[in-house]
Amino acid sequence: MPRNRWEPRQRHRCEVSLEERFVRVRRARGDTGAAWPATAFGSTRGIVYLVGAGPGDPELLTVRAARVMRNVDTVVYDYLVSEAVLALVDRRAERIYAGKRQGCHALSQEEINRLLVTLAGRGKRVLRLKGGDPFIFGRGGEECEFLFAHGVPFEVVPGVTSASGASCYAGIPLTHRDCARAVVFATGHLKDGSADLDWDALARPQQTVVIYMGITRLAEICRELVTHGASPDLPAAAIERATTAQQRVVAATLATLPERAATAGVRPPALIVVGEVVKLRARLDWLAAQPPAVLAAA
Amino acid sequence: MPRNRWEPRQRHRCEVSLEERFVRVRRARGDTGAAWPATAFGSTRGIVYLVGAGPGDPELLTVRAARVMRNVDTVVYDYLVSEAVLALVDRRAERIYAGKRQGCHALSQEEINRLLVTLAGRGKRVLRLKGGDPFIFGRGGEECEFLFAHGVPFEVVPGVTSASGASCYAGIPLTHRDCARAVVFATGHLKDGSADLDWDALARPQQTVVIYMGITRLAEICRELVTHGASPDLPAAAIERATTAQQRVVAATLATLPERAATAGVRPPALIVVGEVVKLRARLDWLAAQPPAVLAAA
Repeated sequence: MPRNRWEPRQRHRCEVSLEERFVRVRRARGDTGAAWPATAFGSTRGIVYLVGAGPGDPELLTVRAARVMRNVDTVVYDYLVSEAVLALVDRRAERIYAGKRQGCHALSQEEINRLLVTLAGRGKRVLRLKGGDPFIFGRGGEECEFLFAHGVPFEVVPGVTSASGASCYAGIPLTHRDCARAVVFATGHLKDGSADLDWDALARPQQTVVIYMGITRLAEICRELVTHGASPDLPAAAIERATTAQQRVVAATLATLPERAATAGVRPPALIVVGEVVKLRARLDWLAAQPPAVLAAA
Repeated sequence: MPRNRWEPRQRHRCEVSLEERFVRVRRARGDTGAAWPATAFGSTRGIVYLVGAGPGDPELLTVRAARVMRNVDTVVYDYLVSEAVLALVDRRAERIYAGKRQGCHALSQEEINRLLVTLAGRGKRVLRLKGGDPFIFGRGGEECEFLFAHGVPFEVVPGVTSASGASCYAGIPLTHRDCARAVVFATGHLKDGSADLDWDALARPQQTVVIYMGITRLAEICRELVTHGASPDLPAAAIERATTAQQRVVAATLATLPERAATAGVRPPALIVVGEVVKLRARLDWLAAQPPAVLAAA
């Protein structure tokens, strides 16, 4: 079996320590400056791993994320991290729920920032686990700035962003040479609570728009896009709990999606995808069905 | 050691077959329709796995991607797939290079499409390996449409898109509540060879713009953005070979980046990132240095 034959080699690759990885990277870059601060990885000094947990399916964790999760003292996790992913964290690790469900925060962002610094100050290896990618609508930047200001070492592990996961599992490519030359990610949930998305930019043609955390404002979003020039017939979809076993997709148009989604009872967490690419789902929804045609050799 | 304690459990999770995974997903969704076509996973019928290889660092492969790679007959891979990632593919698998280096295609898109159908028609488990995410500038949608039209079963495995990898490893968050409410991915390399990006949309404020495959047109891109209203002082960066040991980052402004990047000799593959968030790199470049400050408990 190839799996057996490859395991030793793969394990060997995996066992390279974080410190060694960074030393190699710096050496390859020609960095000849000061060595990595010795304290950063000392047993008495904490570190924060800011890790993207991906869109929900634990199979979509990165190899690095899965490795870090098995070797931490404490995990601070958000609402959007799935149960199946949490189950992979070292069972002995302390678990702290940071919340962030829309309008229902267990801890404020300021409290989360301070918590991470406090835990690292106690010498803990802290896993800060966020749904999707930590640097796309994850406020990861804000947390890193705070860690930097307080002298806490950190590593950032990118993740599969929810738009990618939803796209692949719903059969809706985010770009396509014929109809989507660009893709825009925006959020329906802004810091100041305002609704002022850049509607003119979002309503432009030849692109795909993905709106994170906007499902509770779906009717307003669809209406504004049409008001700002998008066709009411532009295909649009709502994707609930993307990549999990509970994934549901409602595909319609800007004119009809709000009612369809309401009828289906779509609730957060859900993404909104707007653009011609949504039409491709009819052929590309590989998870729901495979074509019955006889295999034809080209 | 937690790693040892968890391995059996993790392995157990991993060994769920593709077919069983899909059956579970459909059951959870309440699908009571026709069963999955029996032929789709029969030993005599091929399948194509369209897999995102991530930005370069093999640690950023998804768990699912790493698993699929160990159990295929043939791999068809692009220029952007790193050597370190390829090394993880089953050693016995046939390797076919599909090219796609800018302006230098080993195989045309039409030839790649036909190749995948031919291989699957021979009953092969085919790994179609693409850099980044297969549905973001990967032409994955086009390949899936062709597979569907020819009755070939396929699965799509999302990956960490290059922008996410570059962002996290260069210390440049793609969004930030203070200065980037949206992020736009565009490509400098269009189907018709034209240069007509939607400059008005890309030059708008309060967003981050990432341009894939645009580094050879860097001077033109920076000039057009300024012509269409962006400030010449807007921070901008070129990130070469993101997340690999050869990663290099040149950070400057729209006015100065072309010359700086040329002086540094930045070449493809490289991403261009434009927006206020580039400034954060001064504090968030965790790979290059950690803050020397004394750890302060909050």
